Amino acid sequence: MSEKEKMLAGQMYDASDAELSALRHQARVYRQQVNQELDSSKRTQIMKEWLGKTGDKIYVETPVTLDYGCNIFVGDHFFANFNWTVLDTCPVTIGDNAMLGPNVQFYTALHPLNAQERIAGPEYGAPITIGDNVWIGGGAMILAGVTLGDNVVVGAGSVVTKSFGNNVVIAGNPARVIKNID
Amino acid sequence: MSEKEKMLAGQMYDASDAELSALRHQARVYRQQVNQELDSSKRTQIMKEWLGKTGDKIYVETPVTLDYGCNIFVGDHFFANFNWTVLDTCPVTIGDNAMLGPNVQFYTALHPLNAQERIAGPEYGAPITIGDNVWIGGGAMILAGVTLGDNVVVGAGSVVTKSFGNNVVIAGNPARVIKNID
Amino acid sequence: MSEKEKMLAGQMYDASDAELSALRHQARVYRQQVNQELDSSKRTQIMKEWLGKTGDKIYVETPVTLDYGCNIFVGDHFFANFNWTVLDTCPVTIGDNAMLGPNVQFYTALHPLNAQERIAGPEYGAPITIGDNVWIGGGAMILAGVTLGDNVVVGAGSVVTKSFGNNVVIAGNPARVIKNID
Repeated sequence: MSEKEKMLAGQMYDASDAELSALRHQARVYRQQVNQELDSSKRTQIMKEWLGKTGDKIYVETPVTLDYGCNIFVGDHFFANFNWTVLDTCPVTIGDNAMLGPNVQFYTALHPLNAQERIAGPEYGAPITIGDNVWIGGGAMILAGVTLGDNVVVGAGSVVTKSFGNNVVIAGNPARVIKNID
Repeated sequence: MSEKEKMLAGQMYDASDAELSALRHQARVYRQQVNQELDSSKRTQIMKEWLGKTGDKIYVETPVTLDYGCNIFVGDHFFANFNWTVLDTCPVTIGDNAMLGPNVQFYTALHPLNAQERIAGPEYGAPITIGDNVWIGGGAMILAGVTLGDNVVVGAGSVVTKSFGNNVVIAGNPARVIKNID
Repeated sequence: MSEKEKMLAGQMYDASDAELSALRHQARVYRQQVNQELDSSKRTQIMKEWLGKTGDKIYVETPVTLDYGCNIFVGDHFFANFNWTVLDTCPVTIGDNAMLGPNVQFYTALHPLNAQERIAGPEYGAPITIGDNVWIGGGAMILAGVTLGDNVVVGAGSVVTKSFGNNVVIAGNPARVIKNID
């Protein structure tokens, strides 16, 4: 397996690999282009090239920072407000009609807890999967391995460390269910 | 009522309205100007044009990201550190002598909790009102509908979900009173 | 003592002092240079000039925002991901092999809790000291006066308000020990 294949599969991999370094450099070029562009239809074109998959209608405010971008797959009617940040070492899959507030963060990347293993270099990750019709409040972060169901509302500032099913409002650090939605 | 009038009044409104889209575009032009400007007196001039009201002395570090800007009203001696982010769909009113740490966030914007109502498009909000002499620590966020009294200190990283009176230190997610100030 | 000496010593000082204002302006010039630079080896050169001390190998993703920069001292093999933000009014000292996730924040700066003292202007701070082999998760913030031991892992989104020793995983707001590392 290539380092990229190991990375996407959640196995330990070497991020200094040439193919992965080139993909990250390409992401930073896209980032600079999109973040300097005031014309929203031109930004949409860049985002459609940059992301792994987009659906019908996408609107992303700037700045936006995606570690790879090509590992992010979004559905129809995707909206991300200012300063969306994603470490997409593993796939980030988002359903239709997503609304992300400003400063929302998705982190699929992980390192070993043991210091000697960690500083040796190899790292790993876990995917993030989000259902349809999800609203993620400003400043919230979704961590590696989390799955959220349909119609979930994530309160602003939440730190989402585990998975939740459909039709709930979650909030807090760590996030917990604070309300069921009819 | 125009969509802008509905928005400011906290009623359901259509953000894709032409007048509102033009105001947001203007805010992004101001943002690009101010964020590229290293001369602080020129930045101050831009901020005075951009914000709805400013008093005597204002100092805003860059980057700064304001959704409209024209719905933000600040008093004398206003200081905001790096990366102040505001969704000012409803009025954001701040008294005199405010000190905001880096990465402080104000979010007046809200969406319906019901998924079908939310994805239909119309949204709403609630104002944020801050008294005099308030210090808001780095990374703290103030949510829609919150009022803070005079002399309040908001701990770094707080998520402020409800209102508090004068002379308290609040902290946590959600923020709670952790100390009374004499 | 000069205002700079008072600042670094954790005493009350006047941030509007000419020497300190010039140092902050220099930091904003470095910031603009590094944040526009796509070539990582050129960025490394700028970071080595900007920071107070660097060791063997440093990699800092952009954007990066440091209030002074010259008061930050890092060891060998330092890695900071996107959008590292530091208020380094007092020394920020970081050991070898540090890994910082995106949006990590270090705040040494403090203001008096009493409103009249605070708005009078003088401020103060406390140093931050981090051991070897520390991993700080995305969006975490380390506050004034905190010391962390070796091999500490700080969970994403943590707000670290007090000091911790070696070999622990801490998380939450405020951060608490959630696991001991063998």
